[in-house]
Amino acid sequence: MSNNTTTRLFTFAGSATGEWLVDRIDCLVGAPIAPAGRLAVHAGPLLEIAQDVSWSLQGITSNDRYVERSEKVALAKRQAGMGRPECTRAALIPIRKSAAWWALTQDERRAIFEAQSQHIAIGMKYLPAVARRLHHCRDLGHGEPFDFLTWFDFAPSDEAAFDDLLQALRTSPEWAYVDREIDIRLEREAN
Amino acid sequence: MSNNTTTRLFTFAGSATGEWLVDRIDCLVGAPIAPAGRLAVHAGPLLEIAQDVSWSLQGITSNDRYVERSEKVALAKRQAGMGRPECTRAALIPIRKSAAWWALTQDERRAIFEAQSQHIAIGMKYLPAVARRLHHCRDLGHGEPFDFLTWFDFAPSDEAAFDDLLQALRTSPEWAYVDREIDIRLEREAN
Repeated sequence: MSNNTTTRLFTFAGSATGEWLVDRIDCLVGAPIAPAGRLAVHAGPLLEIAQDVSWSLQGITSNDRYVERSEKVALAKRQAGMGRPECTRAALIPIRKSAAWWALTQDERRAIFEAQSQHIAIGMKYLPAVARRLHHCRDLGHGEPFDFLTWFDFAPSDEAAFDDLLQALRTSPEWAYVDREIDIRLEREAN
Repeated sequence: MSNNTTTRLFTFAGSATGEWLVDRIDCLVGAPIAPAGRLAVHAGPLLEIAQDVSWSLQGITSNDRYVERSEKVALAKRQAGMGRPECTRAALIPIRKSAAWWALTQDERRAIFEAQSQHIAIGMKYLPAVARRLHHCRDLGHGEPFDFLTWFDFAPSDEAAFDDLLQALRTSPEWAYVDREIDIRLEREAN
């Protein structure tokens, strides 16, 4: 398949099974989602919709939209991969941004994202403890309810730091454009 | 459906029917596509694959990736809508860019796109004669063979100007990153 689509697409399914136990689902802005006891993370589309799936969300990793080279170099020096054995806590944070955000031009979005909100700089402070993978949903073409799904993992001892990271982002000017946000906290047994 | 997905998704089908007659299909770089006598343009997905469809390509309109506010204002002042009655010629130009392009950061891509290649400035010179709609395919998630589909329409008397536009882009530094390009020329009867 072209464009590495199969390796870039991920499905997150709220269900009765799945490797992650749902600790809590908080709705920060906008409509909530249905409860689920567990979360399954699939690389690729969910080919069969299991009977026990409450909801599923898809997203695709893609090229950087805002990061500049100097930032990418700095991030690469500090960041760790997903799935480290000690990272038995995770969060899935689906976000939608408003029409006003999407009507902005690239220079305007970059100015809000970094010059005003320090989105990259804030995330950098919590590396390598908090690993992050961003998935885009807005242009998948089949009506996903969110624009982004961000997946984080970290050790239990870093959950308070992760909350600080979210607090800093949620009080930034960029978040004025977030019109739906769900915070799904998860845990799994250590490997 | 959320995110206006249904109004942003377009399907272009090479077939024996369709409102556009194919004048010629030129393969500029990379693998060719199958011949087709006509082209149908659908708003939305092709819900039924007709027997006579040779191929179909999907793309989704999206937010601006490179345009800055001053450029957007200047473009908006000059551009015309698609489908003017005199625009009986059209072109569909599917393009794929290399992995090297997608590995660049935003600042690097913008520098090649505009500072070095004047992509926006070149297009501006041919407004309002040549109308353009850009569709993204890379993140559709189902393995589209191209990254972009650009749809143009213009009057027959402007086809030479359109060729000049393409010549300017194809000799620009940005085009070193194009690893597949097809140029499909079309005509229809006047309304």
